[in-house]
Amino acid sequence: MSKESKIFLGEKDMPGQWYNVTADMPNKPLPPLHPGTKQPIGPEDLAPLFPMELIKQEVSSERYIDIPEEVQDIYKIWRPTPLHRAYKLEKYLDSPCKIYYKNESVSPAGSHKPNTAVAQAYYNYKEGVRKMTTETGAGQWGSALAFATQHFGIDLKVFMVKISYEQKPYRKSMMNVWNADVIPSPSNLTDSGKQILAGDPDSPGSLGIAISEAVETAAKDPDAKYSLGSVLNHVLLHQTIIGLEAQKQMEMAGDYPDIVMACFGGGSNFAGISFPFLGDNFRDGKNTRVVAIEPASCPKLTRGQFQYDFGDTIGLTPLLPMFTLGHNFVPAKIHAGGLRYHGAGSIVSQLLRDDLIEAQSVRQLESFEAGLAFAKTEGIIPAPETSHVIAGVIREVNKAKEEGTKKTILFNFSGHGIIDLAAYDKYFAGELQDHEVTNEEIAKSIGELEKLV
Amino acid sequence: MSKESKIFLGEKDMPGQWYNVTADMPNKPLPPLHPGTKQPIGPEDLAPLFPMELIKQEVSSERYIDIPEEVQDIYKIWRPTPLHRAYKLEKYLDSPCKIYYKNESVSPAGSHKPNTAVAQAYYNYKEGVRKMTTETGAGQWGSALAFATQHFGIDLKVFMVKISYEQKPYRKSMMNVWNADVIPSPSNLTDSGKQILAGDPDSPGSLGIAISEAVETAAKDPDAKYSLGSVLNHVLLHQTIIGLEAQKQMEMAGDYPDIVMACFGGGSNFAGISFPFLGDNFRDGKNTRVVAIEPASCPKLTRGQFQYDFGDTIGLTPLLPMFTLGHNFVPAKIHAGGLRYHGAGSIVSQLLRDDLIEAQSVRQLESFEAGLAFAKTEGIIPAPETSHVIAGVIREVNKAKEEGTKKTILFNFSGHGIIDLAAYDKYFAGELQDHEVTNEEIAKSIGELEKLV
Repeated sequence: MSKESKIFLGEKDMPGQWYNVTADMPNKPLPPLHPGTKQPIGPEDLAPLFPMELIKQEVSSERYIDIPEEVQDIYKIWRPTPLHRAYKLEKYLDSPCKIYYKNESVSPAGSHKPNTAVAQAYYNYKEGVRKMTTETGAGQWGSALAFATQHFGIDLKVFMVKISYEQKPYRKSMMNVWNADVIPSPSNLTDSGKQILAGDPDSPGSLGIAISEAVETAAKDPDAKYSLGSVLNHVLLHQTIIGLEAQKQMEMAGDYPDIVMACFGGGSNFAGISFPFLGDNFRDGKNTRVVAIEPASCPKLTRGQFQYDFGDTIGLTPLLPMFTLGHNFVPAKIHAGGLRYHGAGSIVSQLLRDDLIEAQSVRQLESFEAGLAFAKTEGIIPAPETSHVIAGVIREVNKAKEEGTKKTILFNFSGHGIIDLAAYDKYFAGELQDHEVTNEEIAKSIGELEKLV
Repeated sequence: MSKESKIFLGEKDMPGQWYNVTADMPNKPLPPLHPGTKQPIGPEDLAPLFPMELIKQEVSSERYIDIPEEVQDIYKIWRPTPLHRAYKLEKYLDSPCKIYYKNESVSPAGSHKPNTAVAQAYYNYKEGVRKMTTETGAGQWGSALAFATQHFGIDLKVFMVKISYEQKPYRKSMMNVWNADVIPSPSNLTDSGKQILAGDPDSPGSLGIAISEAVETAAKDPDAKYSLGSVLNHVLLHQTIIGLEAQKQMEMAGDYPDIVMACFGGGSNFAGISFPFLGDNFRDGKNTRVVAIEPASCPKLTRGQFQYDFGDTIGLTPLLPMFTLGHNFVPAKIHAGGLRYHGAGSIVSQLLRDDLIEAQSVRQLESFEAGLAFAKTEGIIPAPETSHVIAGVIREVNKAKEEGTKKTILFNFSGHGIIDLAAYDKYFAGELQDHEVTNEEIAKSIGELEKLV
């Protein structure tokens, strides 16, 4: 094999700006609304939770936003990440398509999440914040933010869904290594937690409850701010370094993608890899297909409804314009915990409304088969979330074979599955099932939403 | 920060040969002896266990040995590995020394072990072997060989120390992902295992017992061969790609090390990083200090005795000339499982006898403190084994400060600790102790060795 399978970008060639897709979107996303007044919220509504620079980014219409030197310095611990040509997977699939993947699993926390964690920690630090709170489900986001905050001497409190706290001790340990205070949620530290525990002392917790505890803690403490790992515009913005690097690396490889793909939970890794290529579509007349892969058990993009809904389960956030299954929707307990979110952020939702991106859903067993094929050929064991996009890529390869076409596919390898190996055990033991949600379940969940706007 | 902190080598610049240090050593290692005849063993003695090409490498005096194309092709999944300049650790230590590390944690199995696993699997495959056996303690070696054998369609049976099988399920899962058959040892599949179980049905197992089971299984099956992950000359040879790449990368950085360091278990990662630099010492009059860091609880290099001893606990191997604590020595249960081996291979032992390398021992708590400092600055969480060399590096930095000197230090970052996070938990909980072995314990263990030769 004479061609390089890994394309490295030097640190000096790392992009110095993030890309803001809203500058180029034909239709801008609708604004978030205040749940009481039903009017667009202003910066003052968000100021108790976020530093002003992030609030500005949330509503910015600038095309490019500078990445601060201090953030770039920490990015360089692992960035630029390698772009791989998946020669061995191509051979295994007998693929007429070229397959490239951007390897975000090389970060200290093992996923793309630190791209925004470092930026958020920095802007908080810059504005004098020394205490932050967040929630985490399986722990990917919490460990990324712990890694980031300790670099700036910020104390971090992570409310971790109790059942994950008990079942996934390695993620908790990782957060401890990076100095975070990890609290099983529901806890007695907040009114939200106490309320839940009063009703059910053995509550296993949920992401919705953990968000409530983290938001409440930050809102009550004038010195503390809150941080979210996906969905919001500024989070997606920070992730675009993935796609911006990939554009340079594809050019180094002498290629350009026909299809860009990512798995989809709240949208952060999807936005990261795809928005810069959408920018090329919008500005340069490129025609790249952009495809989000979501789990069949939580299909907000393919089967949800576009409307204003809460971003959290309890209803503490502003109302966001989103494709949603309803904020009370409870997805089946698939192992791709990062994809179990009821809605999509406002930018992605607008893009989908305008038919500028596509979405497909994949069942759990198909995703595990794809993940194993990848681990056996390309070597890296994928996170269960990442296995979803690999399944989507294999579908595209099979389609190209049927059609007799040859495409160039680029996907985001969002994270490794080293701490999710228990899920593979269950797969081998035949204990995993497919969970496809019924139309009735979706109708019920969406029906429960009295029209919020 | 203007200088690049990661130095990447292109795949086309990956070395095409391994380096055999025995070609340049002033005194060659003594030969292994047959335990019965006390005469040097010949190839026919090893043929039941190893393919002929590996036996040839074991006794080769050629300076360079070609890396087969097929092995290079699989190496390129993760190789060349990056060389990092540890700017953030230097800053944290206020170091007058430059610190570089070769990052072997980026391999699919998370350590340097696949460098020899892939080569061994290939030579076995080439000679028609389709069944292999090995043992593993904590699972690093077993997972590396599983990754390698599945690429060549070889069935692998791994005897895994039972207590690790039960306590470290993620390593077992990783081996399963790569198709290996993992058996808790002692098992009922071998006479060795049955014998142990007859005496103690609840035996937690040991590396010695697992080796016996793996060797016995291979010896009894004419179609199967056995594989070892350290100690032997051919294993050390395959690891030299680490140091050969590092030489090119140090040159790209415009530097050359004054000190090369690695942690020491059986010697494979130590040999990998250091032998090519020793070659420069021997041939080009360079004067690089080469330092092995072993745990205080298993100090064969600093407090052991040079003599012929068995490579395994039961006494199935040939007699090897080694610095040893005695093959019955039972090291304390420190978390750096990969460093709990009673002896050093014959090449390293000869080098130490001739004062061509140095050794130091580090206690467990010092190693964890060093590992945490690294995780908080450079981002990657080190394996407990790797934390030992980091502690050694910090000592050299402190020494340089006292002496007012400025050294350039290169060390091998042999593996990440993502699957060893439970060890960090115990450290935080104050449950870890230092274990320094007493002179009496060593004297007793070595005294038990009736002079074998």
